[in-house]
Amino acid sequence: MGNKKVVIFGCGVMGQKTAEVLLEKKSFDVVGAIDINPNLIGKDLGDILDRPKKTGIVIEGDGDNLFSNINADAVVLTTSSHLQTVFPQIAQCASAGLNVISTCEELSYPWERSPNLARAVDDLAKKNEVTIVGTGINPGYLMDTLPLVLTAPCFRVDSLLVRRMMNSAKRRIPFQKKVGTSMTQEEFLEKINNKVITGHVGLLESINMISAGLGWKLDQTVELPPQPVIADRETETGLGTVKPGDVIGLTSIAFARKDNKEVIRLEFNANAGVEEEYDEIFIKGIPNIHERIIGGIHGDIGTVAVTVNVIPRAIEAPPGLKLMKDLPPAIATL
Amino acid sequence: MGNKKVVIFGCGVMGQKTAEVLLEKKSFDVVGAIDINPNLIGKDLGDILDRPKKTGIVIEGDGDNLFSNINADAVVLTTSSHLQTVFPQIAQCASAGLNVISTCEELSYPWERSPNLARAVDDLAKKNEVTIVGTGINPGYLMDTLPLVLTAPCFRVDSLLVRRMMNSAKRRIPFQKKVGTSMTQEEFLEKINNKVITGHVGLLESINMISAGLGWKLDQTVELPPQPVIADRETETGLGTVKPGDVIGLTSIAFARKDNKEVIRLEFNANAGVEEEYDEIFIKGIPNIHERIIGGIHGDIGTVAVTVNVIPRAIEAPPGLKLMKDLPPAIATL
Repeated sequence: MGNKKVVIFGCGVMGQKTAEVLLEKKSFDVVGAIDINPNLIGKDLGDILDRPKKTGIVIEGDGDNLFSNINADAVVLTTSSHLQTVFPQIAQCASAGLNVISTCEELSYPWERSPNLARAVDDLAKKNEVTIVGTGINPGYLMDTLPLVLTAPCFRVDSLLVRRMMNSAKRRIPFQKKVGTSMTQEEFLEKINNKVITGHVGLLESINMISAGLGWKLDQTVELPPQPVIADRETETGLGTVKPGDVIGLTSIAFARKDNKEVIRLEFNANAGVEEEYDEIFIKGIPNIHERIIGGIHGDIGTVAVTVNVIPRAIEAPPGLKLMKDLPPAIATL
Repeated sequence: MGNKKVVIFGCGVMGQKTAEVLLEKKSFDVVGAIDINPNLIGKDLGDILDRPKKTGIVIEGDGDNLFSNINADAVVLTTSSHLQTVFPQIAQCASAGLNVISTCEELSYPWERSPNLARAVDDLAKKNEVTIVGTGINPGYLMDTLPLVLTAPCFRVDSLLVRRMMNSAKRRIPFQKKVGTSMTQEEFLEKINNKVITGHVGLLESINMISAGLGWKLDQTVELPPQPVIADRETETGLGTVKPGDVIGLTSIAFARKDNKEVIRLEFNANAGVEEEYDEIFIKGIPNIHERIIGGIHGDIGTVAVTVNVIPRAIEAPPGLKLMKDLPPAIATL
């Protein structure tokens, strides 16, 4: 088994962090980089990384040209959260015979919300004998795959609750803006209505993956609009001190019902007032399972790590659009 | 997908509990049962279960006869902890074209301690196009697969510590005897020396699975003799009140070293003095992960549940001797 040869498709924050990690690892080689941003095209990949060092890899604007000139195993695709947007990029990679590991949230479980696109991706994958998978810390791991893994010791599962509790003040500034930090309540509401603030993307994908894994037929899935968390005292954030009454973050909630009962609830809490960070899973069943990751898992680090660690599993898997629940577990790579 | 048709091979405690669970589940049918115990042969399987109800399945003494008369998908094999002992039984099942899911601890990771037998099992599986896997709550899940699953969000792993902390007084009497409950320290030591008390079976298999999963080359693996836990006050157990100075359980420890550092430590604590039960995993790396299952997972329930929930994954997997780390995750079945 030689090194895995990987192309970075999308050189934004996630693509850059993925490139940095892959360049540090001894079992991977980065063999190409793609981005449509004209400011990036033609630059050495190293020039845009945190610890810049020439890599000899020049960012190209077009995949087809790159793919015809290199030998690669897989593409890490980080261009968009939306399946419609990444579909042509996936098609391009698949046609070049490359496995695709993408952070596109909608790709993690597309069968419910975009069944036609899901079918098209699956067909493409099988026709070109590659594996295509959507992943990340979530959807892809903390709120779907890990809860499913934790049902293994259960005779029966009646319901699941997953709760992430993170202090947004510890995260990067764009994330703090994304959760509404330092807005007035009116601003927050307006941005929710304009869909500028979307809350956590992918809760419904996680719910659908859980229910598919458990073989459940749901009656209803609901994603509530993100709710602002209001400062009850002066609170320090990456965007300055927020005064009482203004917003310090948000809570995203989605749930699912079956047989007139709520059976899945996912709760994503990100605000600057969180004192104890954790990621928690409660399974009601026989037996009950109560699991907690103390301190929680940092979202950006987790997304990049899970994405990188899935690469070998995607390369080894039989062709098709795969769900994280159906791949052998991602394990930290060398 | 019709129901999975399963044969129970070994009608001891674990086989009986597995049968009970499978009989309750709507996605499985129990289609046969085997045991060599002359007191069981000829009985209806229901007659030996906790909630007896005729099943129409008569316990047979010989697999070959049964296998030639039924149509099955998989065998749950619970006859022994030792690979040498179960090998001919595995061969019998494989020759009949049946997938084997076994609680045999040594089968969970046989490549290090019994490479020739491992090779023979793998050959048998491939020749007969079946999957063979050793599993259970541990080895198979809590101290190997789950820790590996928890490395997915890590860029790098430096070391792992897994600690199970259980109150043995809550477990069945044979288990309490097995951990030395109510013995004097002299008795305990004698039974350790005679190998009547073995501690937790499978710690080295778990260590080897973890290191294989992480791609590590270990310098050394060590399993320490089980250490008695001594009552410091009168302690209630399933074997009566134990007086101070006598044994209330044991601790089994195994560890592994790499590059002159301890990199894996597994600690199994089972004694009647435990006040807080839990199963805990610490991963040192980037980032650190600290995970805890509050209340812990009951060993017998967990072993039966994991074994049952692996059945569909074993049936779907390509042929061969599979390790739990390389199968898609077991998920609670219907």
